[in-house]
Amino acid sequence: MSDGAGEVVAVGEGVTRVKVGDRVAGTFFQNWISGKIDRSVMSSDLGGSIDGVLAEYVVLNQDGVVLIPEHLSYAEGATLPCAAVTAWHALVTKGNLQAGETVLVLGTGGVSVFATQFAKLHGAKVIATSSSDRKLEQMRELGADMTINYKTTPDWEKQVYELSDRVGVDHVVEVGGAGTLAKSLQAVRYGGRVHLIGVLSGFGGEISPMPILFKSVTVNGIYVGSKEMFEAMNQAIAKAQLKPVIDRIFPLAEATQAYEYLKSGSHLGKVVIQVSQ
Amino acid sequence: MSDGAGEVVAVGEGVTRVKVGDRVAGTFFQNWISGKIDRSVMSSDLGGSIDGVLAEYVVLNQDGVVLIPEHLSYAEGATLPCAAVTAWHALVTKGNLQAGETVLVLGTGGVSVFATQFAKLHGAKVIATSSSDRKLEQMRELGADMTINYKTTPDWEKQVYELSDRVGVDHVVEVGGAGTLAKSLQAVRYGGRVHLIGVLSGFGGEISPMPILFKSVTVNGIYVGSKEMFEAMNQAIAKAQLKPVIDRIFPLAEATQAYEYLKSGSHLGKVVIQVSQ
Amino acid sequence: MSDGAGEVVAVGEGVTRVKVGDRVAGTFFQNWISGKIDRSVMSSDLGGSIDGVLAEYVVLNQDGVVLIPEHLSYAEGATLPCAAVTAWHALVTKGNLQAGETVLVLGTGGVSVFATQFAKLHGAKVIATSSSDRKLEQMRELGADMTINYKTTPDWEKQVYELSDRVGVDHVVEVGGAGTLAKSLQAVRYGGRVHLIGVLSGFGGEISPMPILFKSVTVNGIYVGSKEMFEAMNQAIAKAQLKPVIDRIFPLAEATQAYEYLKSGSHLGKVVIQVSQ
Amino acid sequence: MSDGAGEVVAVGEGVTRVKVGDRVAGTFFQNWISGKIDRSVMSSDLGGSIDGVLAEYVVLNQDGVVLIPEHLSYAEGATLPCAAVTAWHALVTKGNLQAGETVLVLGTGGVSVFATQFAKLHGAKVIATSSSDRKLEQMRELGADMTINYKTTPDWEKQVYELSDRVGVDHVVEVGGAGTLAKSLQAVRYGGRVHLIGVLSGFGGEISPMPILFKSVTVNGIYVGSKEMFEAMNQAIAKAQLKPVIDRIFPLAEATQAYEYLKSGSHLGKVVIQVSQ
Repeated sequence: MSDGAGEVVAVGEGVTRVKVGDRVAGTFFQNWISGKIDRSVMSSDLGGSIDGVLAEYVVLNQDGVVLIPEHLSYAEGATLPCAAVTAWHALVTKGNLQAGETVLVLGTGGVSVFATQFAKLHGAKVIATSSSDRKLEQMRELGADMTINYKTTPDWEKQVYELSDRVGVDHVVEVGGAGTLAKSLQAVRYGGRVHLIGVLSGFGGEISPMPILFKSVTVNGIYVGSKEMFEAMNQAIAKAQLKPVIDRIFPLAEATQAYEYLKSGSHLGKVVIQVSQ
Repeated sequence: MSDGAGEVVAVGEGVTRVKVGDRVAGTFFQNWISGKIDRSVMSSDLGGSIDGVLAEYVVLNQDGVVLIPEHLSYAEGATLPCAAVTAWHALVTKGNLQAGETVLVLGTGGVSVFATQFAKLHGAKVIATSSSDRKLEQMRELGADMTINYKTTPDWEKQVYELSDRVGVDHVVEVGGAGTLAKSLQAVRYGGRVHLIGVLSGFGGEISPMPILFKSVTVNGIYVGSKEMFEAMNQAIAKAQLKPVIDRIFPLAEATQAYEYLKSGSHLGKVVIQVSQ
Repeated sequence: MSDGAGEVVAVGEGVTRVKVGDRVAGTFFQNWISGKIDRSVMSSDLGGSIDGVLAEYVVLNQDGVVLIPEHLSYAEGATLPCAAVTAWHALVTKGNLQAGETVLVLGTGGVSVFATQFAKLHGAKVIATSSSDRKLEQMRELGADMTINYKTTPDWEKQVYELSDRVGVDHVVEVGGAGTLAKSLQAVRYGGRVHLIGVLSGFGGEISPMPILFKSVTVNGIYVGSKEMFEAMNQAIAKAQLKPVIDRIFPLAEATQAYEYLKSGSHLGKVVIQVSQ
Repeated sequence: MSDGAGEVVAVGEGVTRVKVGDRVAGTFFQNWISGKIDRSVMSSDLGGSIDGVLAEYVVLNQDGVVLIPEHLSYAEGATLPCAAVTAWHALVTKGNLQAGETVLVLGTGGVSVFATQFAKLHGAKVIATSSSDRKLEQMRELGADMTINYKTTPDWEKQVYELSDRVGVDHVVEVGGAGTLAKSLQAVRYGGRVHLIGVLSGFGGEISPMPILFKSVTVNGIYVGSKEMFEAMNQAIAKAQLKPVIDRIFPLAEATQAYEYLKSGSHLGKVVIQVSQ
């Protein structure tokens, strides 16, 4: 469990950057403050190398927390550390997203939902895919301009191409694994960007790198992001009064059901466990 | 007269990029297609080194025109070549504007109005200044989040600082000349950007470069932009269905009155001369 | 035959950028002047979509030629349009190569040789691979700091890792196809760059995209480059008085032998056909 | 006294990034690890807001020191924190210096000497100025390609223009204050960069910002740099086995004479005080 938010109830000696009463979220990589990633960052992931945050109290370094926007509840703030920072890192920090560009998001997982919100915030168009018409309807409500049901349209990459003025999209937020990557490389424009993300599902298969070369594509591996990115994102969320999408909140006593619900895949938006009131 | 739009009525031999019937605008610098500026670009400005477009027919190179967005009239398309491209170049191409940032625009001239529209399109906050409460009201209608009357608040730079969370703004669209530049350097944050623009008024005075150094500011001289920037901007305008602000349209027979009206300074938005129906 | 250089012997009406007597080379993509690549560029490749330059006289657009550095012969200038521009685009334009970084070049083809020269010019370290000790010796003479014979060291990626301070290299100039790409992704550091190039051999196989994600790697597809890149490169070549490596020059009458020699693979550096004196 | 180097003799509890015996230098801004500058960084300057390093023992945070390159003595390592990091930040981190570009350095102070070394390391040309022919001779020995005595050539900006192929230089390392800045803006090319530096002398006068606008110049205020920049620079210094220039070393007992010698201005390169053996 990498993502959580709460109130600071005590600080150790020498702590200057947070104070008791601050409303904070932990950073996914506890050691990635800013600058470039390096290998030492990799072993500081909350809920992986380090004990996670499904707890009533956690101890974190002052450099491993950020203030959450004032207009967000703790439940909303708790949705940000992994999926939102990943989407921001991909589209904004690395991708330099500009108004007028078109973004393809695959599926309706957490990264895709935040990517849709951030793309709309920057004046971009969004094409969303899903196998569920109900979820596509929800994506439209969140701002997606065009949607494709990939179950009824298995060659969805061709439709993306048509929907992007027969040029291809500028950005693909690629969360789907090796199977979709080959299609994403068809859907992206010459000189476009594919943001390769996949913390949950992994990439089971293999792809031909040919289209990367022939279409002069940039493929960026994106692994969450730094504290500096998190803070820039929070500033944008605060100024736009943007609200994360929460599907459902479970009490701590029903944590197991929360995981089962998550596994069922019927959600769109974040599933939150409320540890205390 | 550098800015104009119209229909292509004839093309010369070997022309492949435009065809009869296309709706186009001329580019400010006829020789700046893309890439970096160099000195040779400077002597290709329409209405300056080259005869302007206050005419019923003009002859331009196929590389010196761009298609205007379909949802715009010719009058609207004619507002884009100088002021809009300048604002886009500053904030988007060079400035890498991101949601959550704050932009200060000085006055309510063409560049400031487009800068406000583009900043809002990218999810940024806008602080606008003017000596007219009526115009500040109009700027709020266009999306400005905060406004300052610099006549009643002569030390407006201090108020900008307060309005930007006592940090300073990320971007200043500086069109005001040497007098305002010193104040702009007070209003910008550490590590912020000042986009120096001023094709009309010029810069009468002198400034101390000290704050540039001590606040690690980047000052970018911005002189309109390239055809490539114009096309990226048009794509954004088309996708957002954004409308340029036209203050008033004069018929060709009243061109002199149009210039006088412009000189009176009572307008907000563009003053257009309609050459033909 | 995409690459050639020669003297301008005649210019058409309206030509202003070159004059009779200029020493020029053609650009690989006749339509890529500057800015981003798009699909229209792809069908303007000399020697592919357009007739090549194995000829005594060719007709090219004034935007499709660049001046070659004065210290180079025509034979030397003829080596630049494809391999050298590709290496420059990858390492310098896109890769922002800095002193202190380490570059891995695979094999001893034209791109790898130029990449070695450009990397050394920017103060970087170079690790070169080949199956021939003789060629590795030649690469050392050209400036390569470390060399690996991949025939005697089949798991060369491990040795690259050791040679790069157990961090991995900052850049891979990847010309080898799908087989080497998997190893290159092992050899590159967290957050490093793989420049994907392969105009000749193509990419026969498939790779797992997993390491791109887990190591936060950027993979850039590089397809030669623009006229603007060619001119920036020529400026650097001129100032450094850098000399392209020519393996052997054949007279026009022996063009067939030149191709056979090229196919034999025993060369290091460029094989040139001299059309006239 | 902001700059110093020495051996770690003891570490506090919880220190993981340095160990006893490490050879380190302090960072100029103790709080600037990486990422963007902000105001909080400004009050962490060694020898300014914080006690300096003219001492036998100093206590620094583990984030406020970097390992010095192995091939450097402590005296050499002590020259790096301010002048070298400033030059690196300007030309490499911000300026993206490329081979083939031309750099103008003003005078022969520490920043100008390091800028010359780093420019040569990246394959650039250097034009150096001084009022002393002896120092210009020394700059040539360090790699400067062209030199100008500004006492005998008071309109040196015109000569810079001639020496840079009548285009102007790509970069100016501007350390001279308001008087030289006006001339530097004449000497820089259209679209070029002026790196504004001046921690010691300050900027006494005022300048017209007009040329910044009309030549589309970028002026970057540069105030030393971050720990991340320092480490990237050290990597380059280590790989190139580059040696800082030391003019003279004084023993601690003669510290006063060292300052007087510095004030006399007859040095080229760093003046070092050796605290212990």
